[in-house]
Amino acid sequence: MTTGSEIRVSFPRLRARLDALAEIGALDGGGCARLACSDADRVGRDLVVTWMRDLGTRVEIDVIGNVIATWPPDHFDPPVMMGSHIDTVATGGIYDGCLGVLAGIEVLETVIANGIETQHPIAVAFFTDEEGSRFHPDMLGSLVYAGGLAVEEALATVGVDGAVLGEELQRIGYAGSAPCPGRPPHAYVELHIEQGPVLEASGATIGAVTGVQGISWIEVTVTGQSNHAGTTPMTMRHDAAYVAASIAVFVRKLTEEMGAPLVGTVGRVALHPNLVNVVAARATFTIDLRHTDDTLLSEAEERVRSHCDTIAAAEGVDVSIRSLARFEPVAFANDIVDLVEEIARGSDGVVMRLPSGAGHDAQMLARVCPAGMVFVPSVRGISHNPAEHTDDVDLARGADVFFALVLRLAGAT
Amino acid sequence: MTTGSEIRVSFPRLRARLDALAEIGALDGGGCARLACSDADRVGRDLVVTWMRDLGTRVEIDVIGNVIATWPPDHFDPPVMMGSHIDTVATGGIYDGCLGVLAGIEVLETVIANGIETQHPIAVAFFTDEEGSRFHPDMLGSLVYAGGLAVEEALATVGVDGAVLGEELQRIGYAGSAPCPGRPPHAYVELHIEQGPVLEASGATIGAVTGVQGISWIEVTVTGQSNHAGTTPMTMRHDAAYVAASIAVFVRKLTEEMGAPLVGTVGRVALHPNLVNVVAARATFTIDLRHTDDTLLSEAEERVRSHCDTIAAAEGVDVSIRSLARFEPVAFANDIVDLVEEIARGSDGVVMRLPSGAGHDAQMLARVCPAGMVFVPSVRGISHNPAEHTDDVDLARGADVFFALVLRLAGAT
Repeated sequence: MTTGSEIRVSFPRLRARLDALAEIGALDGGGCARLACSDADRVGRDLVVTWMRDLGTRVEIDVIGNVIATWPPDHFDPPVMMGSHIDTVATGGIYDGCLGVLAGIEVLETVIANGIETQHPIAVAFFTDEEGSRFHPDMLGSLVYAGGLAVEEALATVGVDGAVLGEELQRIGYAGSAPCPGRPPHAYVELHIEQGPVLEASGATIGAVTGVQGISWIEVTVTGQSNHAGTTPMTMRHDAAYVAASIAVFVRKLTEEMGAPLVGTVGRVALHPNLVNVVAARATFTIDLRHTDDTLLSEAEERVRSHCDTIAAAEGVDVSIRSLARFEPVAFANDIVDLVEEIARGSDGVVMRLPSGAGHDAQMLARVCPAGMVFVPSVRGISHNPAEHTDDVDLARGADVFFALVLRLAGAT
Repeated sequence: MTTGSEIRVSFPRLRARLDALAEIGALDGGGCARLACSDADRVGRDLVVTWMRDLGTRVEIDVIGNVIATWPPDHFDPPVMMGSHIDTVATGGIYDGCLGVLAGIEVLETVIANGIETQHPIAVAFFTDEEGSRFHPDMLGSLVYAGGLAVEEALATVGVDGAVLGEELQRIGYAGSAPCPGRPPHAYVELHIEQGPVLEASGATIGAVTGVQGISWIEVTVTGQSNHAGTTPMTMRHDAAYVAASIAVFVRKLTEEMGAPLVGTVGRVALHPNLVNVVAARATFTIDLRHTDDTLLSEAEERVRSHCDTIAAAEGVDVSIRSLARFEPVAFANDIVDLVEEIARGSDGVVMRLPSGAGHDAQMLARVCPAGMVFVPSVRGISHNPAEHTDDVDLARGADVFFALVLRLAGAT
């Protein structure tokens, strides 16, 4: 029997798996395109499942296509589950999601190869359609796993290309038979790149993730009146584009007034008729608001609504608002956050606690079991982009900390 | 010999011609689509030319497709020219341009039918591609007529659909042989709908047009950095969409500070990547600035540029500006403006002097002869839209005033 305390994961093996998976759906110039349930996703899944089976784990595919490999294969207690996703956005990087899945496989291989015994079984999962780029909503597979969305509804989801998720899962051979929602794990942990610049800017190399920001996506439609840009005096305009711009500027002011960690983004805008010499009749745009405190997130939403009402009256336009998505903030288990911090302090890294600005499968699993995450830095905060990068030294340290975390949670004996 | 002082045009005849022309390229639900040199434009041209020939006028088609009908047909002195255009935008109204051409034909028919003799011949023209919707720039035919653009260059213009103007003129049978630039008329006058709300809002029914606003079209490109909307703290952003919104709000403030008649419009915007949860890397948008005073128009342009520089530095983005179009203000001949006002005062209408916010063929002819315009009200200021409308009583009054104006300029004996 080996305790694992002197044992470390093999970073070269993890690096090799990251690079091998990155070749599937590789884009010219770097990055990956493996949209959920596409042909590239199938090839990627097949490769990862081969690695799982080669380790001798018990591989189960559930009805929504989530794949879970458990060790020991004949141990059916709730496992300490590691996981993430291997689908990507249309022009994604090679670390987002894949790091968590392949680090999980590396943890399993290290445990198995060294004969480490644990009180709880250990599993690694990859969840279907985390990105949501092809089938809405994002984090779909883990949401269904945690019982947050009925499996029938999820399977009927129509993608942006008109494909039906259930049919695509059949087509790529990943419509499994394991029941979903799945059994709650003993605990769930996920290693992930930060996808933001906070660690790098703070000089930290390990993030002990405290939770996930609450998210509110709002679509605002301003209906004014189309008019000739030359012949219509300023005082007689009902300019939807101006109102949209004014609201976007208000969102920035609101983040300044309410302060961090509130963030607000107007990222998508469409004007109609969108002509240089015509006052816009209609503007449709989105506001993305995030906060770790649900009360303050609600306050931000309310202040946006109030400003919309005020400017609608002042400009003689109609402003309508609809919610595109609303997720409450998620707090990860304190014990796990503390444990990540403690283990990282024993490494050569610099740890900081921070909330996640992005959504992750861990927030869905947090509904059914204690959950937590470990972040490694993203160079310049770039993600969802072929330029997404994390230095090897940071990847390796993250995998080491993650390995120690899993052993502690699983009760390595 | 008849002096014409008791003679009036026939509004029913003008109305019938407006309605007949409106049937060509008619859109379901109203309005017209006769893009320059399209099949519909050819049918419209053929109809108007038939009316011109039926009156016994001398009809000349020049090399850029402008059509000019002169009465008496054997009189070759510089005429008092009436004119406008019969091409439309893709979803246009039935009065824009057509009113001026068909009122001109009605004036000619009234002169001819009543045997009115004039010192100068009288002509009516319709100019090619005034709208510029298919071939840039707008007012192309009158610009070439006035010598502002070489005919070879104009004929080589490639349209938004890839068609070449010269080839399209050949195809529709309007590549004429009359030389262009054309001979300067004795004077040029144009009856047109206002295409703006000023007359209606002022309770006026006849506009004595003082000139055409100067126009500056600017395209601004903001290059920031694409970032995750959840993970990027507000203080670390280089948000192209925010900068664009801020500049749009500045344009509004500038019009308030500098006051009328400055108008400023941000009508076209494109964000990249234009996603709800991504801080925009790039924003491209247009600013349309207009003023009757060239010095003040330049001042407005300069203040926009200066603001762009300031915000670029503050937000850590690059802002580049290019001019899409720049026309100096045009002043119409004082004598003609005064004459319109005098004649309108003798009608049952209410006259006001105002600048044109839109561009017109008259501003091109103003380069080579005394020119002026008469406006009639546009209901709710709507134009370039099937809902474009002017009440019959206003159309009729406008035609009466225009008729009297032409007789005075032509020296009816």
